[in-house]
Amino acid sequence: MSARILKNSVSYIHGLSVHNETRELLAGVLEGSRAHLARAITLIETKHPGKHQQAQWLLTSLLSHRNKLKKSNKLRDTFRIGFSGSPGAGKSTLIETLGKSLTGLDHRVAVLAVDPSSSRTGGSILGDKTRMPKLSSDPNAFIRPSPSGGTLGGVTRNTQEAILLCEGAGYDVIIVETVGVGQSETVVADMVDMFVLLVPPAAGDELQGLKKGIVELADLVLVTKADGDLLPAARRIQTEYSSALRLVRRALNYPWKPRVLRVSSFTNEGVNEAWETMTEYKETLLEKDLFNEKRMLQQKTWLWYHIQWQLMERFHSDPVVNDHLKDQEESVMAGRLTPGTAADNLIKFFIKQ
Amino acid sequence: MSARILKNSVSYIHGLSVHNETRELLAGVLEGSRAHLARAITLIETKHPGKHQQAQWLLTSLLSHRNKLKKSNKLRDTFRIGFSGSPGAGKSTLIETLGKSLTGLDHRVAVLAVDPSSSRTGGSILGDKTRMPKLSSDPNAFIRPSPSGGTLGGVTRNTQEAILLCEGAGYDVIIVETVGVGQSETVVADMVDMFVLLVPPAAGDELQGLKKGIVELADLVLVTKADGDLLPAARRIQTEYSSALRLVRRALNYPWKPRVLRVSSFTNEGVNEAWETMTEYKETLLEKDLFNEKRMLQQKTWLWYHIQWQLMERFHSDPVVNDHLKDQEESVMAGRLTPGTAADNLIKFFIKQ
Repeated sequence: MSARILKNSVSYIHGLSVHNETRELLAGVLEGSRAHLARAITLIETKHPGKHQQAQWLLTSLLSHRNKLKKSNKLRDTFRIGFSGSPGAGKSTLIETLGKSLTGLDHRVAVLAVDPSSSRTGGSILGDKTRMPKLSSDPNAFIRPSPSGGTLGGVTRNTQEAILLCEGAGYDVIIVETVGVGQSETVVADMVDMFVLLVPPAAGDELQGLKKGIVELADLVLVTKADGDLLPAARRIQTEYSSALRLVRRALNYPWKPRVLRVSSFTNEGVNEAWETMTEYKETLLEKDLFNEKRMLQQKTWLWYHIQWQLMERFHSDPVVNDHLKDQEESVMAGRLTPGTAADNLIKFFIKQ
Repeated sequence: MSARILKNSVSYIHGLSVHNETRELLAGVLEGSRAHLARAITLIETKHPGKHQQAQWLLTSLLSHRNKLKKSNKLRDTFRIGFSGSPGAGKSTLIETLGKSLTGLDHRVAVLAVDPSSSRTGGSILGDKTRMPKLSSDPNAFIRPSPSGGTLGGVTRNTQEAILLCEGAGYDVIIVETVGVGQSETVVADMVDMFVLLVPPAAGDELQGLKKGIVELADLVLVTKADGDLLPAARRIQTEYSSALRLVRRALNYPWKPRVLRVSSFTNEGVNEAWETMTEYKETLLEKDLFNEKRMLQQKTWLWYHIQWQLMERFHSDPVVNDHLKDQEESVMAGRLTPGTAADNLIKFFIKQ
């Protein structure tokens, strides 16, 4: 089968010579090898143009393979879930608790972290291993920590492709973990089937740490640490978020109303109910034929994300643009030029080459 | 003085021959003529490349003129306020009431409408005249209805430049009115000093008509129609929004906390207090040197808006890109190509020319 995949996929990238190493990676990923999966994700994170083409070949081959499985009804359904919350919201503890319970139910669970803060401070590779000790040693789980560098755009861009790799390696529950403080949430919401917001039972001021608009993205809000002394606070937060969610507009006829539940990773209370709610969400969307429609539209959204990112990247790295950028920016900020005129000028420099 | 303006400004656009009509427009705007102002705004709304250059010359000349006034301390302070709210929130009634009271206090008031819905249905020129009858006949007020066509991006893009024209014509309070349902709010928030959200005392379901995230933009929320039978509902809405705003994160050390007030355009109750709060906001920002800093940063933001818009516009209108776009989009939506690979392909078509 490998040979056929290669033959069909290589046609997408003209004149590309596929490295043996890339072919091995593909075979390894399809066999479900965690080591190969990890290396494949590293490959798609590359900025090197040649390696980038190898990565694109790998991804396209994987898609082609999955499309064949789909046609013969052999494709296992997958479920992509975003988990967002401030640092200290209890994300890793809950993901470990939920993840262990899911592998116990024969699911294969992949956890991908999008963490802009750790990418700034230089990586959390050790951190991720130690904060989910049980899940990282589970043979049916795969945990990918945040890359130790790169822009936010780069990180999330790779994460969307890393989801495909994980699914290709046989993982059926993909959890994308993100800190609710950056600009990453909308982008993450656009790559998952369901967006879950985690909030701790904290005082009002701490709640303000939430990113603007993030509550509006949530299909489900989980109030964490809902046990012991914190239970009354958790109940209060649950009520607050329930009424905040009432102010959120949803698409007409969308068959799902966001819910707010309490969970405790310590007593396990609410964790099963949370998973049942997630599967209920999935079933509801599947029934209404909205599940795959949402994914299809997300693919299109991602095409335009990539186009915009790449255009802006090329603009930013253009040497002639950079020769004039500072001068134009200063003129705009000093009120000597309108933003529109300065943009006209810079675009002319960009296009003329 | 006109001659000097021309001499200094024309250097920004090499080889441009300035039309007599454009020179007259500039002179008229600087003299405060409403007719010239209206025609100048029409000029900046143009899509015609030649006229676009005339418009850029006009705007640059205006900036240059204002910079000279600033140096000699003759520039009158201006205040740009965004008013957003769903249809039926009572925006025009409140703007008329507030506007009349401001012209009574020797302010000159300009109202610019950004209304994506009316631009779709073909314009609200008559509508705008009739819904603010007193203000539109006031010699110290200028009302510019929404353009009757064009994309949302175009409308708001022009609005930011229309603000400059109005200020050049001597208007010191600029109200930008927008319907809180589109994608325009963030963009409007980026062109005003203060963002005011208007909400009617409606039932819960109607409140859901608010755009995601719009509450988070508000420096001030005004609960409208707070009189008679609706007063209890207005009080309830005020409480709801007060607690919703508590969930919003603000920049650290930002010296302003958003407030929620009740107003009635019918009894006039709360209208003066609302204006006092607005001026208090302005004073607070001025005191902390944040007022002009905010405007400077907004100018820079607008430079990047324009760059992004123009790049995407050129991409969309590129014939070679369009030859391949549908095919690539379909491949992406069908799962045959990753969004990243398809973007690579399309960008290659765009750049190669």
